[in-house]
Amino acid sequence: MTQSAAESIGTLGILGGTGPQGRGLAIRFAQAGVSVMLGSRDANRANEVAATLGLNISGSDNRQCAKDSDMVIVAVPWDGHGELLESLRDELAGKIVIDCVNPLGFDKQGPFGLTVESGSACEQAQTILTDSVVVGAFHHLSAELLEDSTVASLDADVLVLGDDRDATDQVQALADLLPGARGVYAGRLRNAHQVEALTANLIAINRRYKTHSGVRVAGV
Amino acid sequence: MTQSAAESIGTLGILGGTGPQGRGLAIRFAQAGVSVMLGSRDANRANEVAATLGLNISGSDNRQCAKDSDMVIVAVPWDGHGELLESLRDELAGKIVIDCVNPLGFDKQGPFGLTVESGSACEQAQTILTDSVVVGAFHHLSAELLEDSTVASLDADVLVLGDDRDATDQVQALADLLPGARGVYAGRLRNAHQVEALTANLIAINRRYKTHSGVRVAGV
Repeated sequence: MTQSAAESIGTLGILGGTGPQGRGLAIRFAQAGVSVMLGSRDANRANEVAATLGLNISGSDNRQCAKDSDMVIVAVPWDGHGELLESLRDELAGKIVIDCVNPLGFDKQGPFGLTVESGSACEQAQTILTDSVVVGAFHHLSAELLEDSTVASLDADVLVLGDDRDATDQVQALADLLPGARGVYAGRLRNAHQVEALTANLIAINRRYKTHSGVRVAGV
Repeated sequence: MTQSAAESIGTLGILGGTGPQGRGLAIRFAQAGVSVMLGSRDANRANEVAATLGLNISGSDNRQCAKDSDMVIVAVPWDGHGELLESLRDELAGKIVIDCVNPLGFDKQGPFGLTVESGSACEQAQTILTDSVVVGAFHHLSAELLEDSTVASLDADVLVLGDDRDATDQVQALADLLPGARGVYAGRLRNAHQVEALTANLIAINRRYKTHSGVRVAGV
């Protein structure tokens, strides 16, 4: 008997998994048959949200989540990203860590991409997590669409960034599990900044057109 | 009798119009009924290329092109972008200037987005051209597809960036003239950097998938 793609992942942990993006990804991956564990600063909060979501999603504090997971998505706010990853270096060692964090600022003119010392959130993660393989993905998926059970297809490509071919292949396969989504390799980590910052443009598009926009790559 | 959208533009100048991107845009806009003038450092070169392209495309040096055009596309290499625009401040005053320049570097690992002092090529242009209205657009269109007469549809959205609503509306209408393309407002000039740098990701995609990729915005 062969393992399904969803089973072969093992446990997928989502750090900061109680926020909108984390919850939305948790639901969609659990529906695809993946074993999902939500992490949060507060284990009780993680358990509560996990119980609300159902689908056999479990909850724990971020440290336990990092330790017990085979592959981990980082879905925390940019503020605190570095600090959290510093604290989980050992738990995340040897694992694929998927960063979907968008370093954005907001003012009265709307969103804008922040300048990041390491270049991008992904590069900051890789700089800290020297014993993990960091891959960038899931930056542009609308939390609203992910959480909306009436939305059958996400109608979006997931741009997957990384320097390790095996890891980006695995994350592309993970993205392919989302309904109406497709993982597309989109370059090395050094080209993650603009993918993260492009979320500011998608928010501008959403405001102008009153929609939840996504990115599709034509020609692939 | 009402003017067509193509006629209402007047003369569309393309600075650096003898390069692949400039030639490709010239052909497609001329085919859509727009009066197109190619600019080049060398007027003879511009005339030669214009004659080769046909379609009533004219040629002149960049200064004459800037002066005689009603709307101008800047399609020069990033190296020299600032210097050229400094020299054409008077000729471009009062006009919509469309910047499609991608500040990219290349090394053995491929392309990457350059850090730009003003933030982006678009913002550099607006900083220099204080009496013009700068709009960013046409960054992601493949020169190969533009120049290939067998390609009937470009299958791409044109992300249009700017701080002046009337100007971005006009440039969206211009983009709509390209076959299989659509102008989509995508934010202010301060969010142009990531749109320019995303071209590095598209080149990475092209290399991996052996294609000419483009961007589509889902949900709009």
